[in-house]
Amino acid sequence: MGQNLVLNLVAKGYGVSVYNIEDLITKKFIKERATGKKVKDTYSYQELVASLSQPRKVLLLVKAGEAVDLVIGSLLPYLEEGDIIIDGGNSHYADTDRRYKELKKRGIQFLGTGVSGGEFGALHGPAIMPGGDRNTYHRVEEILRAIAARTAEGPCVAYLGTGSAGHFVKMVHNGIEYAVMQLISEVYDLIRKALRISPDRISVIFKNWNQLQQSYLLEITHHILAQKDEETGQALIDLILDRAQQKGTGKWSAQEALELGVPLPTITAAVTARNLSALKQERLVVNSIWGGLREKVLKEQEVLGLLEDALYLSILIAYAEGMSLLRTASERYNYRLPLEQIALIWQGGCIIRAAFLQPIYQAYFTEPDLTNLILAAGFKKDFRDKSPRLRKVVMLAKEIGLFIPALSAALDYYDGLRSAELPANLIQAQRDYFGAHTYQRKDKKGSYHTDWPR
Amino acid sequence: MGQNLVLNLVAKGYGVSVYNIEDLITKKFIKERATGKKVKDTYSYQELVASLSQPRKVLLLVKAGEAVDLVIGSLLPYLEEGDIIIDGGNSHYADTDRRYKELKKRGIQFLGTGVSGGEFGALHGPAIMPGGDRNTYHRVEEILRAIAARTAEGPCVAYLGTGSAGHFVKMVHNGIEYAVMQLISEVYDLIRKALRISPDRISVIFKNWNQLQQSYLLEITHHILAQKDEETGQALIDLILDRAQQKGTGKWSAQEALELGVPLPTITAAVTARNLSALKQERLVVNSIWGGLREKVLKEQEVLGLLEDALYLSILIAYAEGMSLLRTASERYNYRLPLEQIALIWQGGCIIRAAFLQPIYQAYFTEPDLTNLILAAGFKKDFRDKSPRLRKVVMLAKEIGLFIPALSAALDYYDGLRSAELPANLIQAQRDYFGAHTYQRKDKKGSYHTDWPR
Repeated sequence: MGQNLVLNLVAKGYGVSVYNIEDLITKKFIKERATGKKVKDTYSYQELVASLSQPRKVLLLVKAGEAVDLVIGSLLPYLEEGDIIIDGGNSHYADTDRRYKELKKRGIQFLGTGVSGGEFGALHGPAIMPGGDRNTYHRVEEILRAIAARTAEGPCVAYLGTGSAGHFVKMVHNGIEYAVMQLISEVYDLIRKALRISPDRISVIFKNWNQLQQSYLLEITHHILAQKDEETGQALIDLILDRAQQKGTGKWSAQEALELGVPLPTITAAVTARNLSALKQERLVVNSIWGGLREKVLKEQEVLGLLEDALYLSILIAYAEGMSLLRTASERYNYRLPLEQIALIWQGGCIIRAAFLQPIYQAYFTEPDLTNLILAAGFKKDFRDKSPRLRKVVMLAKEIGLFIPALSAALDYYDGLRSAELPANLIQAQRDYFGAHTYQRKDKKGSYHTDWPR
Repeated sequence: MGQNLVLNLVAKGYGVSVYNIEDLITKKFIKERATGKKVKDTYSYQELVASLSQPRKVLLLVKAGEAVDLVIGSLLPYLEEGDIIIDGGNSHYADTDRRYKELKKRGIQFLGTGVSGGEFGALHGPAIMPGGDRNTYHRVEEILRAIAARTAEGPCVAYLGTGSAGHFVKMVHNGIEYAVMQLISEVYDLIRKALRISPDRISVIFKNWNQLQQSYLLEITHHILAQKDEETGQALIDLILDRAQQKGTGKWSAQEALELGVPLPTITAAVTARNLSALKQERLVVNSIWGGLREKVLKEQEVLGLLEDALYLSILIAYAEGMSLLRTASERYNYRLPLEQIALIWQGGCIIRAAFLQPIYQAYFTEPDLTNLILAAGFKKDFRDKSPRLRKVVMLAKEIGLFIPALSAALDYYDGLRSAELPANLIQAQRDYFGAHTYQRKDKKGSYHTDWPR
């Protein structure tokens, strides 16, 4: 990804110095992909920094965690006041806040910057989510705009807020990504197991659906399902082990939502589903005792129609959850996140780009204080028409015993928010009963405790 | 709770010195509840420590967090090597590990100790979950056994493991507690809204169910639903505001499960449901547009029968999740948790005591390496007979649009673990497509990357 970003920068006319902790990687890059290009290879932090003109702009693409601190620590002796470090990795936002503050004390500017688009996006234009000081952003804005993906609305980059705003937004972007991947997988699974349609045909079905949805993840799924194993000619998907891995951003989104008290059921279910998938051995044992789906005769075209709408709506709900987490975090951490700008820059380059980011943008543009996308006028028709169809899909899957936790959680989120009255009053009563935690009443203000009978 | 524990200790023949940061509280306690009892009031940390015979045993009941560090810091100047601090609050296990290590350096023994039973349990016998050094435990074992709840198997206390083992187990205990409370509430809500049965009658129904389940939380719910508001004579439950609050242990369980990669859907759904309930204003707005349950004619006795079994099985599943988190944590943190002892001490005094802790104990006693309670021979009949009934309940609730995230998640957990094949292979393919994260194959070892078509 680092190499691709370098080639992207060079293609836009910028000269770039590169450094990798492994000299061989640098040498190979210079000899092969970067040959004849405005790329200077360096073999020490000192050499790297010396090769840059002031104020220096150093872009890190380092695995999130301790490595980022080590690299910053190695750079610091050579940097000078006014230099800028851009962390383009998936750092946890709390680390970014800490680094931002520490570096500020030394006069170094720090931009925690989410970059989404995978390897392809890095080369051809990613979505870029920078956070930090606005002034610092303006000093690198031209470069970031040059390398970012472009849509009809312009380059997919915008200043998102102070401190860790950029990495927080990227974390939630990835949380939504986990949900969309899980939702597509559940729909695929249902088509495969309940309708017994082959990967080849599902590939074509997804391609057709994608004319409306224009979702990058649905598009790549179409390609994936058509892929054959070179040796056997089988559908490659059938040879891939069903244990999902992860690198942390989805988990962080779910943990952070719990921390801030924001319900994020669909995204959380997607992370949990990956964890459950990892228990392959345990699943095989349980399956040997309790396994097997219930048979049910289904009308193929009807179920496919339901699934198309269920997928569309459940993905929209995952976005609603993500945006609601951003909205709360923006208040809690004083980011002042521009939600409409975020919907705008997610329209190009990034992994979760999809057609309905345009109406999401419209929704926040018209109503900046919108509490939840479920309430957006632009989505009224979708919720009215598609929610009964999502419901049918969830009921069908539950009936036959298929594991569809994210589709189910998306429906739960909608049903929960639709509930004027929830039985949380009973929970409050229970808490007061055993722990004297008190409760509030509907008919008068204050805190109350009851001396319950035992 | 502190006062009740003191009175419990005194009733068992121990002399106790008490200290509270608010002198007035101490004075009131001495003058009223502790009058004529072997309780010595003290008004400074110095006085408190001076009043104890060596080696001193200091029990803290302080709100989890910074306050615990402050109190320990204030005690330290007066304590001597060999003295014991017992933290009986709901401290986060990571704090307990830190304190354990810091105090050990100073020669002070630290027992992070979960205490469950609420105010009533504190006075009449709680379940006690101590962790730390085994030697230290043995030095207070007699006292803890004296004040603990008792069942036919003996006192509800056992040494659980090194460091933070006790507080970790208590955290998971509370996570299960969140799930059981939410499951009972969802079943209540369904009876109330779909069957239109009054709180009075539901109270009687729950009392009947509890002859089999012997669940403390179901028992108190029976009392709660029978309670009238003194002023109006209405069912009190209907006057309690439906915004659930929380103090952190449920959230920590869900966050920790994500951290350790253990699926904990039912417990997590319970925490998320509390968070969603807190959005009362937002719910009212969404309800005004999308609200309302679908009408459905139901056979009362039939649905009640389904609900009784669904509640039983979903609670059992919540325990299965919690025990599976304990099992993984035990390995990861080297606690060597005695799962069968935990099931034993949870049978008395604590908030989640229930009849099936006996078969859970049996399951781990017979099969200490049991990976999941779903596989226990003793529960085979329950899963066979009741899982189709839990399924019917979930389908019914989804059909009418009722929010039952925990019941639904419990079924998901079962259906997920029953799945020999999950579509996580598609997720791995997607990750490899956009991020070159590689995948494993079913037919051969190693990591693979495909040059996917674009």
